[in-house]
Amino acid sequence: MRIIIVGGVAAGAKAAAKARRTGPDHEIILYQDEAEVSYSACGMPYVIGGIIDNRRKIVIRQPEDFGRDGIQVLTRRLVTHIDPEQRQLTVRNRLDDSEERVSYDRLILATGARPMVPEVEGITLEGVLTLRNFADLARFLSLLQTKRPKRAVIVGSGYIGLELAEALHALGIKTTIVEKSPRILPRFDVEMAWHVVEHLVENGVELMLGEGLAKLHGENGRVTTVETDTGTLLAADLAVIAVGVRPNVELAKTAGIALGETGAIAVNSAMETRMPGIYAAGDCCETVNRLNGKPVWMPLGDIANLQGRVAGENAAGGNARFPGVFGTAIFKSFDMGVAMTGLSEQTARESGFDPVSVEMEGSDRARYYPSRRPFFFKLVADRRSGLVLGAQAVGEGAVDKMIDIVATALLGKLTCADLENADLAYSPPFSPVLSPVIVAAGALNNKMSW
Amino acid sequence: MRIIIVGGVAAGAKAAAKARRTGPDHEIILYQDEAEVSYSACGMPYVIGGIIDNRRKIVIRQPEDFGRDGIQVLTRRLVTHIDPEQRQLTVRNRLDDSEERVSYDRLILATGARPMVPEVEGITLEGVLTLRNFADLARFLSLLQTKRPKRAVIVGSGYIGLELAEALHALGIKTTIVEKSPRILPRFDVEMAWHVVEHLVENGVELMLGEGLAKLHGENGRVTTVETDTGTLLAADLAVIAVGVRPNVELAKTAGIALGETGAIAVNSAMETRMPGIYAAGDCCETVNRLNGKPVWMPLGDIANLQGRVAGENAAGGNARFPGVFGTAIFKSFDMGVAMTGLSEQTARESGFDPVSVEMEGSDRARYYPSRRPFFFKLVADRRSGLVLGAQAVGEGAVDKMIDIVATALLGKLTCADLENADLAYSPPFSPVLSPVIVAAGALNNKMSW
Repeated sequence: MRIIIVGGVAAGAKAAAKARRTGPDHEIILYQDEAEVSYSACGMPYVIGGIIDNRRKIVIRQPEDFGRDGIQVLTRRLVTHIDPEQRQLTVRNRLDDSEERVSYDRLILATGARPMVPEVEGITLEGVLTLRNFADLARFLSLLQTKRPKRAVIVGSGYIGLELAEALHALGIKTTIVEKSPRILPRFDVEMAWHVVEHLVENGVELMLGEGLAKLHGENGRVTTVETDTGTLLAADLAVIAVGVRPNVELAKTAGIALGETGAIAVNSAMETRMPGIYAAGDCCETVNRLNGKPVWMPLGDIANLQGRVAGENAAGGNARFPGVFGTAIFKSFDMGVAMTGLSEQTARESGFDPVSVEMEGSDRARYYPSRRPFFFKLVADRRSGLVLGAQAVGEGAVDKMIDIVATALLGKLTCADLENADLAYSPPFSPVLSPVIVAAGALNNKMSW
Repeated sequence: MRIIIVGGVAAGAKAAAKARRTGPDHEIILYQDEAEVSYSACGMPYVIGGIIDNRRKIVIRQPEDFGRDGIQVLTRRLVTHIDPEQRQLTVRNRLDDSEERVSYDRLILATGARPMVPEVEGITLEGVLTLRNFADLARFLSLLQTKRPKRAVIVGSGYIGLELAEALHALGIKTTIVEKSPRILPRFDVEMAWHVVEHLVENGVELMLGEGLAKLHGENGRVTTVETDTGTLLAADLAVIAVGVRPNVELAKTAGIALGETGAIAVNSAMETRMPGIYAAGDCCETVNRLNGKPVWMPLGDIANLQGRVAGENAAGGNARFPGVFGTAIFKSFDMGVAMTGLSEQTARESGFDPVSVEMEGSDRARYYPSRRPFFFKLVADRRSGLVLGAQAVGEGAVDKMIDIVATALLGKLTCADLENADLAYSPPFSPVLSPVIVAAGALNNKMSW
């Protein structure tokens, strides 16, 4: 049996490895458009900021590494067409522009996502960058090294935009974020997102809310000024377009593979598309939010890995399931971790729950233990059932731990009353005597009984 | 209604506060044997080691603080007798040795635990210390300051013994631990405990296994030498007895209050003893291990707080429940966190499960992210049901997070298959792309399907 995988970054690379372990005798071919495979896109902002000193470090495995496992990795190959009837692909070799048709028994689409780029004047000027794939990273690093930009404008305030703001600021570049919406981080409740706004501003990042990109002005082909849709002119020798990403679904769509309502490829819990023999995994496909059952598109590296594992196992004859997500996410912004899982209070209300919430200041250590670090913590539960619905944590210490505890509580369908009696690890250097999760669950529980 | 609480460190202080919130009109009196109430015994090793620079910092609340909440806190009062028929106590005032009888409607026993002290020759020599209550801490600090000991022997290798080894070592005191058993940390599987042994030795602590305390030699009333039961002589100007603690149950026992099979006071999930109107909470009472249903004595500060909360609420007319524990515990040993939850592989086998386990090296960050810190992680599950039974984590990074995730998984009765698809928070500064918990659950899951 021949398994072909299209795309080899996170989901594709993982799917190939898992297919190999599941079916040691299968032929496995992975086509990758880029020259690199198996790299961590999530690591790129840290390469740019200099925390990671060499971009090669974020490459996890080389094509040869896969080769040693009997996986044929072919880079610079663009799959241009799928013929699901014949179970054949058309593959263009980017090196010599030759094309070939290759047949498959099982196909895994891991085509990923790409940045949205608004079609505005000046968008093709030198110094206008996106950050998504390895070539983007190379362009970014080259520009930083050769042009030594002094003033950057980042258009968009998603995770990438915010991570890049920190990275560029660390390089001594005066950085302004422009965001069309009047707020940032829409998946967080407003008051939690506002802590991040304050932290950005305290750290010297300018943030202009309610201002979208209108056009880019340049001189000699290089960007000099960003103009917003309210007419603000911002000097910039570097402009980053970080307004979001969209799934790469064109290949699937022209092959007649159904998309879901989010616009990404529809899959079931076996990661099968609705076309026989064809799976999808990672940023190109949608999944389900386990809390409200709604389709959701969650283009994140860990989800891609989990989905790739399931797609790879099943394509090779296994029987794995990916049950969906709780919407857990985390990123770093200067000294803050910013994390959430499940539903925000607002989203919970929109999803038909009757949410009740508690917001508190937590800490990662006993109150008398030195260098304890504070954070804001919000826990949301359903008033009728007591079910925990989600949490948000923003601050310096242990936000990742708080969110992982609650994410696991969501997995166990726990109520506040359950969580109030969690037996968590306490010792002064590691936690307050009662974890903020326990304190918040207790407070929520009291609200329930009213 | 008058609620009387005997003991005011962790469980007692918490019970008083919770009783006040539950029943604003009740009379609440707390008797405390010591001069201090509401302090964190868990913080004492860090006061001794100098991480916490003032012992007053570990006192959470003063008697006056309770007074402002309408809780009468009477210190230096020893409750010498309970008359459950008359619902009366005999209380001795340690300041003037006067006694009075006081009646109660509800009684909460929070009498704690005390160090076991072997009755060997020389045990009363100056320089032979235990560490449990505030007076112990004062003696410890005074000895360190006035006698500047150079060589310490710690008898016993429990959490307190190990934490003190680090503290004394930090003060430049050459420290030897003698442990009667051939191993340390019996609740951990041997190979996990061994990582701690190696770390202690690497940090310059001497560890002598299989050597119990035989006697102490002294000069001019001060300890000079510790002699072990194999005849080894160890020079010591400070000897710490840390061979374990036992519950303070004498008051309860003479009042006819039933003890459980662990020797601590038996309580139900409402924290009621078997004597009407009398509750118990904290280190003086036993609880139940939620995994195997067995009575267990777990004298830990966080459990005392949780139990105190339930006892206080119920004594004041509420209806709270403490469902038991999973045996979660953590402590710091030099650069290592040492943590566990649930059952070890060995304990699981002894409890009638058919355990299967995975041991791996984990990390707290993406593999390419600087200053990532490694740890050993072991996950245990039941082969028949797939149920997660417990975990152990030993090392530098994020062991507390790993254990809290698994402790929450235990609360949710999750299987390895559930946990393999946990949606945990990933970003390079906070986690590898797949959490060690997910990787271990996946590996265990594969073992199940064989």
